[in-house]
Amino acid sequence: MAQQIKQLDELFHEGLKDIYFAEKKILTALPKLAKAAMSKDLTDAFEKHHAETEEHVARLEQVFKLIKQAPHGKTCPAIMGLVEEGQEIAKEYKDSPALDAGLLAAAQAVEHYEIARYGTLRTWAQELGHKDAVTILSKTLDEETKTDTLLTKLAEKKVNREAQTA
Amino acid sequence: MAQQIKQLDELFHEGLKDIYFAEKKILTALPKLAKAAMSKDLTDAFEKHHAETEEHVARLEQVFKLIKQAPHGKTCPAIMGLVEEGQEIAKEYKDSPALDAGLLAAAQAVEHYEIARYGTLRTWAQELGHKDAVTILSKTLDEETKTDTLLTKLAEKKVNREAQTA
Repeated sequence: MAQQIKQLDELFHEGLKDIYFAEKKILTALPKLAKAAMSKDLTDAFEKHHAETEEHVARLEQVFKLIKQAPHGKTCPAIMGLVEEGQEIAKEYKDSPALDAGLLAAAQAVEHYEIARYGTLRTWAQELGHKDAVTILSKTLDEETKTDTLLTKLAEKKVNREAQTA
Repeated sequence: MAQQIKQLDELFHEGLKDIYFAEKKILTALPKLAKAAMSKDLTDAFEKHHAETEEHVARLEQVFKLIKQAPHGKTCPAIMGLVEEGQEIAKEYKDSPALDAGLLAAAQAVEHYEIARYGTLRTWAQELGHKDAVTILSKTLDEETKTDTLLTKLAEKKVNREAQTA
C-alpha cells in the first residue's frame, strides 16, 4: 500500500509538472492569438483566458506547495505541438476569412488537453487524500470547461449567422 | 464569399488529414495499451475502443470521398506526443500498482484530443453544407465522448473503492 501511494504520488507530481509547463506555454501564446484574431469576440475571449491562465499558474504553485515540491515544468511535446499549431494558423491564414475558424480550432484542442489533464489530476488528488488540491484543481477545471464552451459558442455563432443569411 | 468557402474547405481538408493520421496512430497503439493494462476492465475498454477506431478510420474515408479527396494522413506532432506518452507509461510503470492510473490518464488525453477535433470538423462540415459528413462525424464524436466517460468511470471507481476500504 505504501508503494502504491508512492507511485501515484510520482504520477501526480509528474502530471503537475506537465500542466505547469503547458500553462506557461499557453500564457505566452494567448496574447499572440488575441492579436491575430479578426473578430472582437474572439480577441476578448483570448484576453479573458489570458488573465485566467495567470491565475491557473498561481494555483498550480499552491498545489506544488501542498505536496512540498518546488514548482518546475517538464517539457511536453504534445502541448508544444498544439500551441505551435495556433501560431502556424495565425501566419498561414493571415487575412483569410477562415482565420478565426482556424484559431478557434487550435484553441479548443488546447482547452481539451487541459480538461483531460486537470480531470486526471483532480481524481489523483482525491485518491491521495490531498483535499485542498482537489478544491484548487476543480476551480481551474471548471474555468477550462467554461472557456471551451464559450469557444464552441463562438464557432457555432458563425455557422448560425451564415445559415440565416443563406 | 467564394474565397471564404475555399479557405474553410482547405481547413476542413487539413483537419481531416490530421485526424486520419491520429486515428491510424491510435489504432496501432491500442493493442499495446490493452496488453499493458493490469485490470480486465481497462483491457476490455481498450479492446472495445480498438474495434470502434477501425470504424472511425473507415468513416473518415467516407468523408474524404464526400469531398472528392483521396484519404491521406498528415503528421501531427501533438498526437504523436500523446500516443508516445502511453507507451512510456506502459514501460516505466510496468508492475507498478499505479500503471492503470497512468494508462487511463494518457488515454483520456488522446480522447480529448479527438473530441476537440471531431467537434471542430462537425461544425465546419455544417458550415460548408456537407450534411452527410455532419452525420458521419457526429457518430464518431458521440463514441469518443462515451469512451472518455467510460474511462473517467474506471478512474473514479478505483478512488471510490479505496475510499470504501479506508
